[in-house]
Formats: sequence, C-alpha cells, structure tokens
Amino acid sequence: MNVPAVQPACVVNCAAYDQAGHRRDITLDDISDVLADPAGGFVWVGLYEPEERLLDTLQDEFGLHDLAVEDAHHAHQRPKLEPYGNSLFIAAHTAQQVDGHVRFGETHVFIGPRYLMTVRHGASLSFASVRQRLERDPEALARGPSVALHAVLDFIVDNYQPIVSDFERELDALEQDVFAESYKRGTIQRLYALRKELTQMRLAVAPMQDILSQLIRSPTFAIPDEVKPYFRDVLDHAARVGDSIDTLREMVAAAMNVNLSLVTVAQGEIVKKLAGWAGLLAAPTLIASWYGMNFEHMPELHGRWSYPILVGVVALVCVGLYRYLRRIRWL
Amino acid sequence: MNVPAVQPACVVNCAAYDQAGHRRDITLDDISDVLADPAGGFVWVGLYEPEERLLDTLQDEFGLHDLAVEDAHHAHQRPKLEPYGNSLFIAAHTAQQVDGHVRFGETHVFIGPRYLMTVRHGASLSFASVRQRLERDPEALARGPSVALHAVLDFIVDNYQPIVSDFERELDALEQDVFAESYKRGTIQRLYALRKELTQMRLAVAPMQDILSQLIRSPTFAIPDEVKPYFRDVLDHAARVGDSIDTLREMVAAAMNVNLSLVTVAQGEIVKKLAGWAGLLAAPTLIASWYGMNFEHMPELHGRWSYPILVGVVALVCVGLYRYLRRIRWL
Amino acid sequence: MNVPAVQPACVVNCAAYDQAGHRRDITLDDISDVLADPAGGFVWVGLYEPEERLLDTLQDEFGLHDLAVEDAHHAHQRPKLEPYGNSLFIAAHTAQQVDGHVRFGETHVFIGPRYLMTVRHGASLSFASVRQRLERDPEALARGPSVALHAVLDFIVDNYQPIVSDFERELDALEQDVFAESYKRGTIQRLYALRKELTQMRLAVAPMQDILSQLIRSPTFAIPDEVKPYFRDVLDHAARVGDSIDTLREMVAAAMNVNLSLVTVAQGEIVKKLAGWAGLLAAPTLIASWYGMNFEHMPELHGRWSYPILVGVVALVCVGLYRYLRRIRWL
Amino acid sequence: MNVPAVQPACVVNCAAYDQAGHRRDITLDDISDVLADPAGGFVWVGLYEPEERLLDTLQDEFGLHDLAVEDAHHAHQRPKLEPYGNSLFIAAHTAQQVDGHVRFGETHVFIGPRYLMTVRHGASLSFASVRQRLERDPEALARGPSVALHAVLDFIVDNYQPIVSDFERELDALEQDVFAESYKRGTIQRLYALRKELTQMRLAVAPMQDILSQLIRSPTFAIPDEVKPYFRDVLDHAARVGDSIDTLREMVAAAMNVNLSLVTVAQGEIVKKLAGWAGLLAAPTLIASWYGMNFEHMPELHGRWSYPILVGVVALVCVGLYRYLRRIRWL
Amino acid sequence: MNVPAVQPACVVNCAAYDQAGHRRDITLDDISDVLADPAGGFVWVGLYEPEERLLDTLQDEFGLHDLAVEDAHHAHQRPKLEPYGNSLFIAAHTAQQVDGHVRFGETHVFIGPRYLMTVRHGASLSFASVRQRLERDPEALARGPSVALHAVLDFIVDNYQPIVSDFERELDALEQDVFAESYKRGTIQRLYALRKELTQMRLAVAPMQDILSQLIRSPTFAIPDEVKPYFRDVLDHAARVGDSIDTLREMVAAAMNVNLSLVTVAQGEIVKKLAGWAGLLAAPTLIASWYGMNFEHMPELHGRWSYPILVGVVALVCVGLYRYLRRIRWL
Repeated sequence: MNVPAVQPACVVNCAAYDQAGHRRDITLDDISDVLADPAGGFVWVGLYEPEERLLDTLQDEFGLHDLAVEDAHHAHQRPKLEPYGNSLFIAAHTAQQVDGHVRFGETHVFIGPRYLMTVRHGASLSFASVRQRLERDPEALARGPSVALHAVLDFIVDNYQPIVSDFERELDALEQDVFAESYKRGTIQRLYALRKELTQMRLAVAPMQDILSQLIRSPTFAIPDEVKPYFRDVLDHAARVGDSIDTLREMVAAAMNVNLSLVTVAQGEIVKKLAGWAGLLAAPTLIASWYGMNFEHMPELHGRWSYPILVGVVALVCVGLYRYLRRIRWL
Repeated sequence: MNVPAVQPACVVNCAAYDQAGHRRDITLDDISDVLADPAGGFVWVGLYEPEERLLDTLQDEFGLHDLAVEDAHHAHQRPKLEPYGNSLFIAAHTAQQVDGHVRFGETHVFIGPRYLMTVRHGASLSFASVRQRLERDPEALARGPSVALHAVLDFIVDNYQPIVSDFERELDALEQDVFAESYKRGTIQRLYALRKELTQMRLAVAPMQDILSQLIRSPTFAIPDEVKPYFRDVLDHAARVGDSIDTLREMVAAAMNVNLSLVTVAQGEIVKKLAGWAGLLAAPTLIASWYGMNFEHMPELHGRWSYPILVGVVALVCVGLYRYLRRIRWL
Repeated sequence: MNVPAVQPACVVNCAAYDQAGHRRDITLDDISDVLADPAGGFVWVGLYEPEERLLDTLQDEFGLHDLAVEDAHHAHQRPKLEPYGNSLFIAAHTAQQVDGHVRFGETHVFIGPRYLMTVRHGASLSFASVRQRLERDPEALARGPSVALHAVLDFIVDNYQPIVSDFERELDALEQDVFAESYKRGTIQRLYALRKELTQMRLAVAPMQDILSQLIRSPTFAIPDEVKPYFRDVLDHAARVGDSIDTLREMVAAAMNVNLSLVTVAQGEIVKKLAGWAGLLAAPTLIASWYGMNFEHMPELHGRWSYPILVGVVALVCVGLYRYLRRIRWL
Repeated sequence: MNVPAVQPACVVNCAAYDQAGHRRDITLDDISDVLADPAGGFVWVGLYEPEERLLDTLQDEFGLHDLAVEDAHHAHQRPKLEPYGNSLFIAAHTAQQVDGHVRFGETHVFIGPRYLMTVRHGASLSFASVRQRLERDPEALARGPSVALHAVLDFIVDNYQPIVSDFERELDALEQDVFAESYKRGTIQRLYALRKELTQMRLAVAPMQDILSQLIRSPTFAIPDEVKPYFRDVLDHAARVGDSIDTLREMVAAAMNVNLSLVTVAQGEIVKKLAGWAGLLAAPTLIASWYGMNFEHMPELHGRWSYPILVGVVALVCVGLYRYLRRIRWL
Repeated sequence: MNVPAVQPACVVNCAAYDQAGHRRDITLDDISDVLADPAGGFVWVGLYEPEERLLDTLQDEFGLHDLAVEDAHHAHQRPKLEPYGNSLFIAAHTAQQVDGHVRFGETHVFIGPRYLMTVRHGASLSFASVRQRLERDPEALARGPSVALHAVLDFIVDNYQPIVSDFERELDALEQDVFAESYKRGTIQRLYALRKELTQMRLAVAPMQDILSQLIRSPTFAIPDEVKPYFRDVLDHAARVGDSIDTLREMVAAAMNVNLSLVTVAQGEIVKKLAGWAGLLAAPTLIASWYGMNFEHMPELHGRWSYPILVGVVALVCVGLYRYLRRIRWL
C-alpha cells in the first residue's frame, strides 16, 4: 500500500500520517478510510490548480463548506481566515521573484481535526521541501495537522523575506542614482514601480498578520496550546516583513520627492550657468557693436593705438567679470 | 392566482415565496394575507423610485418605522444599517459605469422576519436577474428573506468590481502618459478626476463593509447562523474592493505628483537646450560684431587671407563648443 | 393666562407644554409652578445672549450646575455633552452663511426631565420655526423635552448642509480655474481660505457626531428608547456632512497642489516659447552681423546678386527653423 | 502662629487649611502635626526648584515614593499621571511667552488625601494668584486638596490659551506675507519656526488631556465625584487648546507649501517678463544689424527716405509686438 | 568558591545572588545547584554572541523553550515579549553611536522566577556597569531577578537618549544650512540619511514601549507589584524618546521640503538677476547696432556733437533702467 497510487496530475501529494507521525502514501479514495480509523492520524493532500470535479470529490471526502470550496476554485481571494464549523479555511498570498518582477500566487488551506488540504494557484513554490523536512521529525507530525499548517504558513512567510531584501537593495541602488550628479530618466520610473510593488506586497503581508493573530488568539480547536508559540514565531516574522515594507514605502516616497526636486535643481544649475555665460559674452558684444557705429566724429576710432587698447580693455572686462561671477557662484 | 396582477408602475416585482421556496406573484393587497398565513413563507417586493403614497401603503402592510420610510423616499442617505424593533433598514449605494462616468444610485432594503422590500433610486441595475437565479434554487429561498438579502447585497458589491477594474485600467493608461516623453495637458486633469471618483467610490464601499460586519457580528434575528458565512463572503468581496480603492488612491496621488514634476522637468530640459543653442550662437555673433568695428587701424581687416582664416576659426569654435556642450549634456 | 407675559428682551420664548403636548405661554416666574405640577408636562425656555442676572434666576428655577451656567454665559465652548446629575448640558456650534463667509455661533441646551432651555450666542437662526412645526404635532410633544431636543439638534445639523453644498459649489468653480489655460492669482488664495473654513467647519461637526453618539448609546434618562431612532437619524445627517467635509478637505488639498504646479507649468511654457523665439531670431542676427564685418576682402559683398541671395537664404533658414521647432513642440 | 515662619528660599508657600477651609501659615516642621490632626484639613506646600535635601525632608513628611521624588528633582519629565499607593504624582508642562518665544517649564504635583505639594521648574507663573483666589472661597477649600489641584491644573491650562492665540495671530500675519505681491525671505523661516513651536506645544498639551481624562475616569480616592465636573471643565479647555494646535499645524503646513510655491511663481513671472522684453528688443536689433551689412548692392540703403521709413517700420513693429505680448499676457 | 571559575569566552558574567542580594561568582555547572537551593536567590548569566552549544547547555539548565533559544541564537528579531510557561523571553534593540553612525545591536533576555539570562549581539554596551551599580544595593537585588531586568531595560532605554540628542543637534545644524543664503549640495543628502536613521530608530523604540506596557499591565509572575513603578518609569523614558523621534521625523520631513524649495528659489533668484542684466545690456546694444546701419541719409551720423550726445543718452538710459529694475526688485 506504500506504493504511490495513480492520481490526477493536479494532486501533488496525498499522504496519511499515523499517530506516530509516520507517512504512508494513499489514493484519494483511501481518505475516508483513514478519517474513519479510530487509531487517529491525519491526511495531508496537496493540490495545484485543481479542476472543479476533483475539488467536488474532496469536498465530499472532508465535508467542506460550499463557499470555501468555491473560493479555492476561483482564486482571487483576499488573504483571510474563515471558520466553518469545526474546520478552518485560510487563503494566503504567496510572492515569488520571477525575472526581476514580483509575481503573486495564492495558497488556500483547509484544516480540520484530522486533515490538511493545501491548494496552490499561480506563482508559488511547491511545499515538497516543507513536507520532507517535517517528515524527518515524526514526533512533531504526531501532534496533528496544526504542525503541518505551521510549516506551510512559515514557508510562505519566509518566502516574503528575500523579496523585501531585494526591494531594500533596489532602493539602495536607486538612492545612488538619486543623489548622483547626473540625472537618469529611468530613476523616477523605477521608484514609482517599486512603490507600486510595495503597495501590492503590503496587501499580501498585512492580512497575513491578521490571520496569524486570529489563529493565536481565538480559542480554536485547530491549534493546540503547545503549538501556538510556533505560530507566534511566524507572526513575528510576518510583522518584521510588514515593518520593513512600511519603512521602505516611506523612504521610497521620500526618495521620489527628493529625486524630482534634485532633477529640477540640476537643470536650474545649468540654466543658471548658461545665463551666466550669456552675460559674460554680452559685455564685449556691446563694446564691439559700439565701435561699429558710423558716426563721423568718433575720435576713438582714429587713434593709432585705439584698437590695441580696446582689445586690452575688453580682455580685462571679461577676465574681471568671469572672476566676479565665479566668486558669487553664478558661474 | 399566479397571473401577475395590475400593479403601479413603480412596483417592479411583488411575489410571495412559500415554505418550500416556490414563487407566486401577488398584488400588494395580498401581502397581509401572506404575512398572516401560519404556514410561513415570505414576501419580496421590489420598487423603483416609488411615490410617497405607495410607500405609505406598504408601511402599513409591513408595519415599518416612519423614519425608515422617510429615508427610503428621500434617498440621499449614507449607507447604513438601522434596526427598528424586529426589522432592519439598510441603505446601500450602488455604482454604475454610464458613458465613461461613474453614476451612483441608492438601494434601500427593509427586511423583517417574513418580508423583504427593496427600493431602488437612481443608477442601479434591476434585481430581476438576482431573483431569477435565486428562484432556480427554491431550497435556498425556503430559508427565508435573509437569503434574498444576501443575493441583493452580493449583487450590489459584485457591481463595484468592474468599476474598480476600469479605474485600474485607466490608471495604467495614465501611467503611460505620465512617463511618456511628450507631455499631454489632459493627463493631470484626468488623474484629478480619477482621484475624485475614487474618493466618492470609497464613500459608497467603506460603509458597506461596516453594514456587512454588523450583519455578521450582531446577534440579529434577521440572519440565521447558517446563512452568515455567505454574508462573510460578501464582506470579503467588499473588503477586496476597498483595498483596491485605497491602493489606487495612493498610486493616483503619487502619479499626480510625478506627472506635475516630470512636466516641469521636461520644460526645463527644453529651456536648457534653447539656452545652450543661444550660447552656441553668441560666440560667432560676438566675433562678427568685433570685426564690424570701424577702427581705422585694425590690421586684421586688411590681410588677403584674413576673411577665410576667420571663417575657419569661427567654424572651429562652433564645432568645438558644440561637442563640448554635448559631452557635458548641456545640449 | 394664554396672553404672552412681559419678559426680558433676551427671552425669545417661554412656554409650558402640558401632558397632551399643548402649549401655554408663561412668565419666568411661572416655571416653578409648572415644574411642581404633578400632572406632568414640561417647560421650554429660549434665550438669546442672556445677561448673567437672568441666567442666575433660571439656574435657581431649574437647579442647574454652576459650571454649565458659566459655560452658557461665556460661550466659546467646544461642542460637548456634559451630564450633571439628572440633567444634561449640551454645547453645539451653529454655522451660518453670512455675506459669503461662514459665521459660527453657539447654542447651549440644558435638558432635564421636565424642562428644556436653549441659549443661543452669535450667528444662529432662531428656533421659532422649529417650535412652530413641533407645536403642530402635540402628540410628539407629549413625549417630553427629548422630542424638543431632537428638533433643535436636527435643525442645527440641517443648517450645516447648505454650507457644505456651498463649499462643494465653490470647489467646482475653483476647479474650473485650476484647469483653465490662463492663471488667476486669486485662485490659490481662495483655495487656501476654503481649506481654512473646512477645517473650522470640521471642528463644529465632528464633536457633534460624538454628542449624538453619546446621546444614543449611553443609557440616559433624558432620551426615551422610542425617541432614540430620531437621534440616530440626526447622527446620520451629521455623519454625512462630516464625510462631505473630509472629502472636500482632501480634494481642496489636491487642487491646491495641482494649481500651484500648473501655474509653474504655464509660466514655464511661456518662457520656453520666448526662448524658442529668441533662438529663431538669433540666426538671422548672426548672419546680419557677419556681413557687417569690415574685412577688405570679402568676395560675397561685391557680387551683384549677393544681397538678394542672402535675403533668400535667411528667409529659408527662418522658415525651416520655425517649422522644425514647431514640430518638436519647442515653439 | 499665623505669622509666616522662616522657610528655605525655595519654599514659596507652606500653609495648612482646616476643615472649614481657613488658611494658617505653618513651617515645614509643623506639617506632620497637621497631618496627624484628627479634625481633618490639609497642607499645601509650594516649592520652586527645590534642593534635593529639602525634597528628602518632605518625602519623609508625606511618605512619597522614591521615583516620584526623583522625577520632581530632575525635571525633564513627560507630562504624566502616576498613582503611588494612595497618592498621585502629576507632571505637567507649563508654557510661557517670554520675549516672543515660548518657554516651557514643568510643574510637578503630589497629592494625597490630606496634602498637596507643587514643585515648579523653569518658566512658569507663580501659583500665588491661584491660592489667593481660592482662599476667598473657604467653603470650596473645605472639600480637600482636590479643589486645590483643580485650581492648579486649571491655571496651567488657562496659560496655554494666550500662547495659542499668539500663534493664531502670527499665522494671520504670515498669511498676509504669503499672499503678498512681494516676497520676504524671512516668511518661510518664521513659518518653519512656528511649526516647530506648535509641535513642541502639542507635546505639552496632548498628554495633559490624557492626565485629565485619567483623573476623571479612573475611580480614584483623590478626586471626589462632586469635584469631577470641574476637572471635566479643565479637560474641555485643554481639548480646545489641542484642537486649535492641530488646526494651526495643518494650516501652517499648508501655508509653508503655498509660500514656497508662490515665491517660485513670482520669480517665474519676472523671468517671463524679462524674456518678453528681451524678445521685444530682439526684433529692432535684428533690423539694425541687417542694415549694418556691407553689401555693395543694397538698394534700400541709398533711398532718400529709406531711413525715416525704417524708423517708422521699427516703431510699428515694436508697438505691435508690445500690444500683442500684452494681450496674450506674456508681458 | 567565590573565585571566578574558568568559563567559555562568550560568558561575560555568571553569578548567583542569595536571598540577601549578595553576589557569588559561580560556574555554569553550579547553576542547577543554585536553582535547587530551597533558601532562594537567583542566577544572573550574561552572554555575548554565544555559540550554539553553550546556549543548548543553558537551555537545559534553565528549561528554556526551543523557539526562544533559537531566536537568541539567530538574532535579527523584532523587539518583542514572549511568555513561555513561567518564563519570559524579551528581545530588545540596542543602539550605539559609532563613528558618527547609529549601529544597532540586540539584547535578548530570559527571565524566570529564579534566573535572568542576557544575551547580547552586535553593537551594545556591556551590562557590567549596570551590575556593579546594582550590587551596591543588595536590598534591591534581594527582591529577585525582576530588579535586574529593570536595570537592564533601563540601561538600554537610557542609551537611546544620547542618540536622539545627537539627531536633534544634527537637525539644528542642518536647519542653519537650509536657511543659509548659499546652497550646499550635501544638505539634502544628510537630511535624507537622518530621516532614514530616525525611521530605523523608531523600529527599535516603538516596540520597546509595547514590551514595557505589557510588562506593567499583564498580571505576570515575573514583575512583583512593588517593582512595577520602576518599569513604568522606564516606559516613560522610552515614551519620551519616542515622542522626540516622532517630532524629529516631522521636522526633518518639513526641512527637506523647505530645503529643496529654497534651493530652487535661490537658483531662480540668480536667473532672474542674470536676465535683468541681460535686459539692461540689450538697450545700449540696440542703440549701438542702430547707428551701425549703413544708410546714406542718416542725418544724426554727421552732426559734430552727435556722438557725445549719444554717449550721454545711453548713459542716462542705462542708469535710469538700472534704478527702475532695482526699485521693482528685478535686479
């Protein structure tokens, strides 16, 4: 019976854990037998974008609520925790860095006294590694499905962290550009995009904190007291991610402001200097125009040394003006 | 008796549902008979901008509170939930995309143990489709008017979604304009208008969340426990819409800021370049003025090759200056 | 006895309402008789900016608390609700549009089991119309002074509405100016003034919502349960006004921002165009200066057709440059 | 015994009030006798920046908590209310207008069932006037130290008012400058300073509101119920001051924004006009340069009336251009 | 036994305090003996970046929770308070000014009925001085480990203060630059950095306030009632630091805004003046060009005094224009 049975493609995993926490692969049809087994143990089913028909089958096996199953099928849910009788439905957003963009997925979890069903949609890592790590510690698994729930949520929250670190690195890089001497057109666009991604990220993380708080606080059958500290730990990580996001949002907003202003300042600086040069050239131009006048009686025009003297005067004026403008920092 | 009776024009629907959830069209005068029927069942009356006289009649039939009826007549209410004895009065705002603008309407709902009365005002879709879908599931209708209330509120909230999606599409389009090279005068105006519509939309959606929370939390006769999860589901959709609106509001504000700044930046860029060109032309102009001076003794003027040499010098100066300004990005 | 007695000028109204809600004009001295009347009924006294001496008299009649009377005399109170033993003291701000400006007044209300005293200060409409409307419905008045209190507060809140509508109209008008092609200096000043008035208005309306919530929620002798829905209705209107004010504040802030930026943009546009024209004129000026040079050997100067050719070249250059600048939108 | 005893300089006042509220000056050593007097009454000690030794003595007399005494000695406390057994320690910030700047001080109050000790630090007015006013009403003082506490806190809060009024006047004056035609460099600096002072002022006033709320709400021995309305009254004044500060902060922020923008606008206006004038002069300059060209065959140069005609043409061009620029508001 | 035993390098301190509060140095192996001693007393272990193996040993000695030990090993925790059975785990952030930058460290505290273990990571001062001060007051230490906990938290919070004072001094210095006549490029960058450091600092201080509130409010075995006022005192200091940070954040944001605007204003001022000078020179240039025209019949050119008169006219025009521009503040 330990041989993996032939399952539909969207069933990633279907296993029973006995009272001692040892794994046994089962088929979907075996589920009801396991649930009916008076010796205890629980079932863990992992699905990826399941068809409606399969979900209907499992709804019957586990006795799930219509609404929760509908949610799990359609995806596009807010992260939330819904109690239905003696089972819980949890919808969480997963985040993944794909090709330099953050992609969001959804993971729905159904947990009852003796089963855990995870349904993944869109961008999200498989829980295979989570399962394998857990199965090396049968003692923990013997405590029931809440331990598996913890592992799943912990995994989801841990996957937020590298994304936020990426955001932090990106802001650091953008700050370099913001305060650089030369202006890059793309900087503001990347800051805006970063702000948008942070806003979306927050929509995934903030409700996750609510879900975890509810799991810890509300007196629920699902989470035994000795497992609660582990959920508190996950909440703590989620809160840390949330804090980082809030800080980043604030600093990105400030960086956008500073960037836009510094660009204007840099432009103004150039215009100022160009205007300064224009002023510097205006003086000799005036002088040259002056002696281009055709008055019959302009004594200066006729002197032997007039022209060399004028050249000297203009040179003096220009150098003096240049130095002056330089000193008052207009040039 | 199943033949639709002649009703005033503003009565869109008047039906009785028996204990098994089966529909029967009735006249307004039959209502009291149905309510008095010990076998159970309930009445669903749908009105559109009713006259005062009609409302008075129905007030007597259902025993409604003066204030609620007054509210239902005048419209222009905030979305709210008011308990009056063993009945509830709910005012909700509906939103409809009409000719590219969002139009708001109001729907007032009176619900009692054995009746549901909906009163629509302004822009709002008819509930006919809602009723038809429900009537295909008599089992659900047999649970009483709260199921109908759920269908109505669900319909209203679902109609918010396409509007918010439109807003999102519009922001995406405007972002293209914001970061485009060329500046469009209308962009800022459309962003401002979008912000205004989002603000109004929020005034419709946010209190809707309060209403649904109250319906779920408060121990009310009106919503049986087994129906509550359905209301929680609607609340969830409303919250999702609310989240989207908040995110949009934030991003629209950021986009307005960025747009206004980038416009100034783009203008500054042009002024900078024009100033650069002016500087470029100032040099040869100065030289030309210089040799227009009428000094008698300017040796340069008399040389055979003076003029060609000057032409060469000016060309060199211009090309050199051009390259220099180009390299320091002033041109 | 129904003949109005001679009263001090600041006593606008002094009437007793018997158990059936019928009015009878009384003098201030009759008050204690009415209060002592075992048959029930209540007294309604309306004052306008009363002298201290008069307030002292009424304090004795009704047994009011020192602090409340002091507040009522000095005015300049925050809107508030203070319970003193078995009486309530309510201070509310009234608002009135006077000569295009909002003027604020104060209305203080003392309410006990068998009396209602209103004290008006500054800009506020007389309650005469309120009283007259109420007196047409003696049945309501028979329920006691809380009905009169409701009418007074309802009247005050209703008077906020037209002011907020005025604000909305003014913002609409200012938006026209903000997005207009030409800049008006006064626009920003009017937006700033509008913002200031909205801030003050909010200081009147927001605490009013608190007062009404307190009246509804706290188990107070003063408001019988069957009258509470009416107060809830007033609260609703106040909340609607509050929502409008918040929305307006937000949009006014946005409009100020947009206006200031658009003015800068408009100026920049003109500077850009002037710089463009300067560039356009710089080219022929350079050419003209060029041929003003006095070199002996400038072959171009001597040709028969040199001048007409030059005219043609300059014309071509100008037209070409004009078209080019036009196309790249620098002109 | 009514003769003032010789006291350390920092003891501003030391008096016992008997059951009837009559004052008697005592020495510090008499305090324990008064506290032990079974007939009742209380002691009021007023200190100004006391030495540590003196505080230690009084700590023994009144049995004060170490931490409270330490706080009272070091000053630099946040405004706060700390209950220690059956005594309260209150730290409040006082504010005083000194030479056009707001100076902050601290007043610490220890209140027990039979004593009140006030310790003033830094800028704060003496409570002498408070005491004298209270002593004219022995009946009030007979109610115990809470009446004196009220008088002290009332005095502190009342002293906030003129400062806020000064802020309001200053903002009004600055608004004149903000919207004035000419720009004053100091305006923005004064607005910034005002904003800073408002922020500090809020740190004094906001916790004062918390202290008063706590005094009113918490069931404390220290404040008898009949005295509570008086504290509510002080809270009300503090809240009014707090509201004013919040409003001012908002308007100062808006005024800073507007000012900075209007300065840029005013500068832009001048640059625009200067550019306009430059454009106006460019046209005749071009014409003049034109006829400075040295072509041999320029027929215009030789006509009898060429020059007067040119003068006319230039005049026409200038006037026409001037009118045109004026009309499109570029000049 | 009082001789310090050989301990691993990361054990900074390991001591037992008996019932009378007297210290005795012990080895890690002695801990269990002390804990088992029925006479009471407690153990205080101080570690700095301990190895995992050491932590495991101490986990066994004190019976600590897995999660807490894991946290203490990995560092990078949010400041938090976690109850585990009858022990508490506290993670706090320490801050230290190092080379002009704020460096953050972490201190983790395990406190049980009879032990206190502190684990320091990264930048943080040793608690040696804290221990020494405490040990001079054995009476206090006799009250148990909560007194030591207070001393540790007090020390951490006290170390925040100089950093915030540094921030305040830096803002004062930057304000000088902001309002200075000349613009420094680094100012905005330093303001931005200051804002970032304040944001991080707040992430350390704000949760510290939560931790202290929880310690005070929640009925915990760990903090006896007579010690609570001391924690309230620390909370107060933390709140004071938090207030300062909030105020600084607000003012830094305002200063950034003002700085960026004033830089633009200063640039605009220079451009305005340069444009003014250009205008001033344009007039004589036009005149000079004018008389450079080659018309045959320009009577002015031939007059004996034409040239001196022109010189006078130009001088007059320039002086007049200069005065005029000066008066209208365009120069």
